[in-house]
Amino acid sequence: MKFTIQRDRLVQSVQDVMKAVTSRTTIPILTGIKIAATAEGVTLTGSDSDISIESFIPKEVAGDEIVEIRQTGAIVLQAKFFSEIVKKLPTDTVEIEVLGSLQTVIRSGKSEFNLNGLDAEEYPHLPQIEENNKFHIATDLLKAMIRQTHFAVSTSETRPILTGVNWKIENEELTCIATDSHRLALRKAKIETENHENYNVVIPGKSLNELSKIIDDSHELIDIVITENQILFKAKHLLFFSRLLEGNYPDTSRLIPNESKTEVTVNTKEFLQAIDRASLLAREGRNNVVKLSTFDEGTIEISSNTPEIGKVVEEIQSQSIDGEELKISFSAKYMMDALKAFEGTDIKVSFTGAMRPFVIRPLHDETILQLILPVRTY
Amino acid sequence: MKFTIQRDRLVQSVQDVMKAVTSRTTIPILTGIKIAATAEGVTLTGSDSDISIESFIPKEVAGDEIVEIRQTGAIVLQAKFFSEIVKKLPTDTVEIEVLGSLQTVIRSGKSEFNLNGLDAEEYPHLPQIEENNKFHIATDLLKAMIRQTHFAVSTSETRPILTGVNWKIENEELTCIATDSHRLALRKAKIETENHENYNVVIPGKSLNELSKIIDDSHELIDIVITENQILFKAKHLLFFSRLLEGNYPDTSRLIPNESKTEVTVNTKEFLQAIDRASLLAREGRNNVVKLSTFDEGTIEISSNTPEIGKVVEEIQSQSIDGEELKISFSAKYMMDALKAFEGTDIKVSFTGAMRPFVIRPLHDETILQLILPVRTY
Repeated sequence: MKFTIQRDRLVQSVQDVMKAVTSRTTIPILTGIKIAATAEGVTLTGSDSDISIESFIPKEVAGDEIVEIRQTGAIVLQAKFFSEIVKKLPTDTVEIEVLGSLQTVIRSGKSEFNLNGLDAEEYPHLPQIEENNKFHIATDLLKAMIRQTHFAVSTSETRPILTGVNWKIENEELTCIATDSHRLALRKAKIETENHENYNVVIPGKSLNELSKIIDDSHELIDIVITENQILFKAKHLLFFSRLLEGNYPDTSRLIPNESKTEVTVNTKEFLQAIDRASLLAREGRNNVVKLSTFDEGTIEISSNTPEIGKVVEEIQSQSIDGEELKISFSAKYMMDALKAFEGTDIKVSFTGAMRPFVIRPLHDETILQLILPVRTY
Repeated sequence: MKFTIQRDRLVQSVQDVMKAVTSRTTIPILTGIKIAATAEGVTLTGSDSDISIESFIPKEVAGDEIVEIRQTGAIVLQAKFFSEIVKKLPTDTVEIEVLGSLQTVIRSGKSEFNLNGLDAEEYPHLPQIEENNKFHIATDLLKAMIRQTHFAVSTSETRPILTGVNWKIENEELTCIATDSHRLALRKAKIETENHENYNVVIPGKSLNELSKIIDDSHELIDIVITENQILFKAKHLLFFSRLLEGNYPDTSRLIPNESKTEVTVNTKEFLQAIDRASLLAREGRNNVVKLSTFDEGTIEISSNTPEIGKVVEEIQSQSIDGEELKISFSAKYMMDALKAFEGTDIKVSFTGAMRPFVIRPLHDETILQLILPVRTY
């Protein structure tokens, strides 16, 4: 293998595939990045066996030569060193050449690295996925859907299925649901499918988090292919594979209350900042719980009391409070996570009494909701 | 105590005095910030008993009212909570009031905090320093002198005196020296003194590091007062006290060679980047050592070899190489630390053989030098 490549392109691709590489792997070759040069360009691959990322650098983009292939071939280089090296090379182009016995030379200006490579033949093959059942979604919408749900997955391995996000596709609509059994995040969107098939899968929260770090905020469509145990995201020059979680995701639809006894409409940012301050003293304690009380004339009070440190009272003016008077306690962290998922200015919080889950929605938008279970404090 | 204060000013002062506060203290009251209101304004104090910082907020600056004092007094509030609270308060002004039994109310807009305070009478008094023997130095010069020396202090407590920077004042010249016995950094500057007295003290490296984080890059003079066991830096509205280290600092003057056998003149940035790359593979290993070899026609080679990972060869073109041919090995980290201390474009490295300390100086500047002991590798 021997080729010359534009350094910036190489650095970007290496950074992308590095998202899948971990040093905590039991398969030594996965600490490396696979580099393969064909007549078409250079492909980099990184994998931790749960997630695999493949980034392709074409020979030419819009008449601009990116890679000059002298000899095709493949090698695996230690990801940690290779990524550091390419970042720090002195000139705009890099030459990479595999000599005999896996020795790989990286040249740039008057800098020459000689790395011990690993045999690319021993690198695991990426899953073969038949692309019959594709659907499409705009990249920025996908990113938003991940951001608005993945934070609510469980971090505990007690029920492994809850560490994933449930993706359901029915009637050309994608619904993403995450819950750790104390709160739930749900986001829906219309998508384009090729064959109206239905799916119900669970994607590891960590995979979606890494994916959202790589994809950009563009309107370009990303292709998604689901198989029995894998999901593949196909963007331009980028393949992102994740395994799916095995098992049945709980039916969460009956958790969401249909009625409410108190409805509060409030500015998202003011509400978020008041809760942030009200929880400042409570964070130290065991619970990080704040109390919300409604008063006449649309006044809401958020408070917390940590006797050894002090207490906080925050008052905010809501747009409206309808229904019964209410006192309720909940986790400030869950509330802040939920509020950060909303993009609009105003939200409606629907309560069904102090002991029942409550639901937060934007004012005129049915595609997103956040549900939180209250905490019993009195 | 009761006063209203501009939030931005309070936040800035709290951040400054926080630099001295640590949660790892055996004196509980030092986890707090002392707040004292007098007719002139508000004084904040933070201390870890090694370093103490006092920040004064005057009642009025250039006709602009900063603080409105309603009632003088003092209180100590938990630094961790107080600093978080003032940062997040909703409006531009903050009211702080001490009620009975040390209860302190912080009000801002519709936000009200009630903190359990501590008795300001129990807060340790700052050292009383007689200001007979002051000298002055421009703030930005002081900052540069700290930056160019403090990194070379020892991090090991084997010889505690080496964890400090030696400050000598003789003939209206300040010399700062730091060494960990493997390398040495020296910086000199002319200063203004009031009474031509000489000093020889050792200031903890940590104190100087914290000081340089607080002071700005201005040309304004900073006053310095040295006593038997304390040093005081006086900037506008800021007092910074540090204890001095006890003991005699070794005489380092005879470490610095007067002659040299090989002199290399080279561009600082090119040299630094080549050493950075050459050490990329060596960092993992036990030593992080690179080898420098001189060749004909001004060529310098920097190389390292870590058999299990690979090797690097970097070639740079020097302005000149005078004297004997040389092969020498040294710590890449020490060399990079030293090179980062130089502001100019070119440096001269003076070697006295492969086993002797070598000295790095800017081309036309006698006020700074860095010395490094080589590593024996062959």
